[in-house]
Amino acid sequence: MKQALETISLKTEGPGFTDVTQEIAGRLMEVGVGTGLLTLFLRHTSASLTIQENADPAVQRDLLETLEALAPRDRRWHHASEGPDDMPAHVKTMLTDCALTIPVNEGRMMLGTWQGIYLVEHRDRPRTREIVLHFLGEIGAPPERL
Amino acid sequence: MKQALETISLKTEGPGFTDVTQEIAGRLMEVGVGTGLLTLFLRHTSASLTIQENADPAVQRDLLETLEALAPRDRRWHHASEGPDDMPAHVKTMLTDCALTIPVNEGRMMLGTWQGIYLVEHRDRPRTREIVLHFLGEIGAPPERL
Amino acid sequence: MKQALETISLKTEGPGFTDVTQEIAGRLMEVGVGTGLLTLFLRHTSASLTIQENADPAVQRDLLETLEALAPRDRRWHHASEGPDDMPAHVKTMLTDCALTIPVNEGRMMLGTWQGIYLVEHRDRPRTREIVLHFLGEIGAPPERL
Repeated sequence: MKQALETISLKTEGPGFTDVTQEIAGRLMEVGVGTGLLTLFLRHTSASLTIQENADPAVQRDLLETLEALAPRDRRWHHASEGPDDMPAHVKTMLTDCALTIPVNEGRMMLGTWQGIYLVEHRDRPRTREIVLHFLGEIGAPPERL
Repeated sequence: MKQALETISLKTEGPGFTDVTQEIAGRLMEVGVGTGLLTLFLRHTSASLTIQENADPAVQRDLLETLEALAPRDRRWHHASEGPDDMPAHVKTMLTDCALTIPVNEGRMMLGTWQGIYLVEHRDRPRTREIVLHFLGEIGAPPERL
Repeated sequence: MKQALETISLKTEGPGFTDVTQEIAGRLMEVGVGTGLLTLFLRHTSASLTIQENADPAVQRDLLETLEALAPRDRRWHHASEGPDDMPAHVKTMLTDCALTIPVNEGRMMLGTWQGIYLVEHRDRPRTREIVLHFLGEIGAPPERL
């Protein structure tokens, strides 16, 4: 039983979903993981992580609009000093996830067919976001490719 | 330190809570786990997992109605091709959980007195849902029964 | 690879956020953890855990008011036998978190600069709440202090 820990940085371009599934899968392959538990941890409070449908982009549009309706920027927020998009971003983060745990089987995340891993930006401007990847389980040499 | 990984399938009967606490506890006993960390991971984006009060069924009714109000099926969803219950199901999944992590002490999940583990179906029709169980910690022979 | 498991009790004083970051960090230091995975698990269904901004207390006020708006106590709840604050508390718990997983690097939780760990009380009266701390990873003697 071993563990691997690293932090990746990703750029976002304002409110929206960024599919990070392939990026994460690629890191797992480079580390050479076998079976174990993957934890993704986002080091921010105005963006979040979520696992959602990866087929129709309209799903993401509906999810964003729902979050917008739950945390409208024109509400009279007490915390308003960092701009009208900041407090809604904290609410959206609270209602979604800051961390995800995903079982891994022989190097592959056990996602369902329609599940993708998304970084969701809630602030208006482009940002650099850090995701910590922690893996606990079997780690060996990457399998040989013939 | 060892790990166990398996997937269980459960049938749901339309929108509602299914208590899976005993099913999970039974699997832990069969595997013969000691102390460690249990992760439950649902491989779907239109159903979810949650830990909630297990005493009064009216609690579940109120939770379902709250989710219904937060994601009404008569909203003008962009993603409408899979039926009026599909996009609300994705929203409900986003607002609840796709994975749960539960510490286990000497074979027993450390749930509080009133905590039950629920699979929550958000689609109208019966479905078969897969939950991945991952355990990391002590695994030995099941304790003998006298 | 080792693990540590303990339960801490905290008193709350009615609805609000309690910053437990230092308390948790202190426990990790006493246990003498190195690198690994920390899981916090709250054994209740009417309070929750969340990671949020730790700079401006107005953020917490806005988050509480948002939860209050999403689960108003004057709604006609089916489950009303435990007081008008009980069912809203269950809803607030469902929409936030009952467990948190946090990677730990050489004894320090990998929280971002503005991230604090909060216990959020949703009931009106003071309560004693139990949080299970589970750590999996390197555990050695606490580092010597010169």
